[in-house]
Amino acid sequence: MSIFDILDITGVVAFAISGALVALRKKLDTFGVFIIAFATSVGGGTLRDILIDKPVFWIENVHYFYPILLGVLLAIIFRKKLRYLSRSLFLFDTIGLGLYTIVGTEIGINYNLHPIICITLGTISASFGGVIRDILCNKIPLIFKKEIYATASIIGAIVFLILSHYKLDQRICYIFTSFIVITIRLIAVRFNLKLPTFYTTAKI
Amino acid sequence: MSIFDILDITGVVAFAISGALVALRKKLDTFGVFIIAFATSVGGGTLRDILIDKPVFWIENVHYFYPILLGVLLAIIFRKKLRYLSRSLFLFDTIGLGLYTIVGTEIGINYNLHPIICITLGTISASFGGVIRDILCNKIPLIFKKEIYATASIIGAIVFLILSHYKLDQRICYIFTSFIVITIRLIAVRFNLKLPTFYTTAKI
Amino acid sequence: MSIFDILDITGVVAFAISGALVALRKKLDTFGVFIIAFATSVGGGTLRDILIDKPVFWIENVHYFYPILLGVLLAIIFRKKLRYLSRSLFLFDTIGLGLYTIVGTEIGINYNLHPIICITLGTISASFGGVIRDILCNKIPLIFKKEIYATASIIGAIVFLILSHYKLDQRICYIFTSFIVITIRLIAVRFNLKLPTFYTTAKI
Repeated sequence: MSIFDILDITGVVAFAISGALVALRKKLDTFGVFIIAFATSVGGGTLRDILIDKPVFWIENVHYFYPILLGVLLAIIFRKKLRYLSRSLFLFDTIGLGLYTIVGTEIGINYNLHPIICITLGTISASFGGVIRDILCNKIPLIFKKEIYATASIIGAIVFLILSHYKLDQRICYIFTSFIVITIRLIAVRFNLKLPTFYTTAKI
Repeated sequence: MSIFDILDITGVVAFAISGALVALRKKLDTFGVFIIAFATSVGGGTLRDILIDKPVFWIENVHYFYPILLGVLLAIIFRKKLRYLSRSLFLFDTIGLGLYTIVGTEIGINYNLHPIICITLGTISASFGGVIRDILCNKIPLIFKKEIYATASIIGAIVFLILSHYKLDQRICYIFTSFIVITIRLIAVRFNLKLPTFYTTAKI
Repeated sequence: MSIFDILDITGVVAFAISGALVALRKKLDTFGVFIIAFATSVGGGTLRDILIDKPVFWIENVHYFYPILLGVLLAIIFRKKLRYLSRSLFLFDTIGLGLYTIVGTEIGINYNLHPIICITLGTISASFGGVIRDILCNKIPLIFKKEIYATASIIGAIVFLILSHYKLDQRICYIFTSFIVITIRLIAVRFNLKLPTFYTTAKI
């Protein structure tokens, strides 16, 4: 099992926990909790694969079910203590964000797609699971409102594209990109940075 | 026309009625009612086909439009009397649940997919139409909350997989699986059984 | 650049503006506004392409990003003045509706699909972007409620099918169909025509 696999599974578990927690707070039943966790974990990658007409990754690779199940169990068992765990959860989620960005961007590169499309695929992989989670739970997607989240993913995808362009060693690309995404996210949350919001109350 | 076709069309009509009724209660216009009925009827199968990269069934087979139209008409005509019809509607919906489960699971088997994926496809076929219906009507999907619904579909898919494994006669597989799904559902509703719900109010 | 390209880009910009405005009113951040504008512009065509298993148009053709970006910028800059611009926005949106209907219907014809499916694809292309916009913003899709909107698209698709059947010159088909869709929409809004709404408060 490579370091890539360990990070991948960590990301899946973290996203499953984040989905399960939202569902638990909406008082869904056990099945609903599993579905939301599942959709949060694999939703982004599923949309990515459908958009580029690649076989959907979890249909081919059934082993993604187990870390999702683990995430749901952890969320249910620790649901009252997760307040204390929120720091580590945040770290896992951010690792997931970084890793999913890389996976999505790399798939775009391997399919010889335009750099803008590669960035889009990386960002969709990383953040669309959370969008689906929020839609299923009837909330406005959090990533449209919260601190620099998808933006960290976009910047990570750009960095990864540049590093790949210069054919650096793949592990260096992975580590450096993850580092960038995680650092941006940590700084944004620490200093409560947000993207500017313009709004209007004009009726059209 | 085989018994399979009759059950299939019955399921489509039942799901169309259930979609149309939700839409009517949300005061959508006639077009909106049709779209919701359509999405409820074909949504699960459409997602299933897209996930495994199979041609979407209703694109190839235009005759699915007519039972949907029939379901919409029935819902509009009888919209004030459906309270009295709710028992037969429930039965149709349950037949649809059983049948769609079988169709989805069988497609997974024919594509030589892992049993867990076959079960997932069966459940998606049977219950995702209702999820889309509720998302379009801006509600939290009912199946995440109500009595044993998707769970009946999961158990039915497992039973069907086992029966198929032993190469029993196809009609026996169909009838026995439908019987299991319908029985579970009837017992669950009769005794108001629900899946356990764990929840948390902890902020994370 | 043909007149078709100009209309196409106008449609993309108009739909992007309409998406961005809804997002601005929901107080989303800049990234959220862009995503909603993007989904509104390309959502319908994306679903159409996935349903018929055609390569998704904006994955192949990256130049769609620029008019969307333009639409977002215009919406942000003029967000307080769009009240005054609403008439021209309405016109753009209606042009987009007409054009997207034609594009979707024509793709169906080129794939030799059944006329009902061609009409469905035309309507999905034209109106599903707005549905996705409203789902992402946690609203009941507007097109299910407002004046003759998707209905204009359906009628346009039927007209286009008939004209194409008689192998009229393509430009005439385009112009006449657009004219029909725009006229229906203008009359519907001018006289506040709506589809009939039946509803029920019966619990089922």
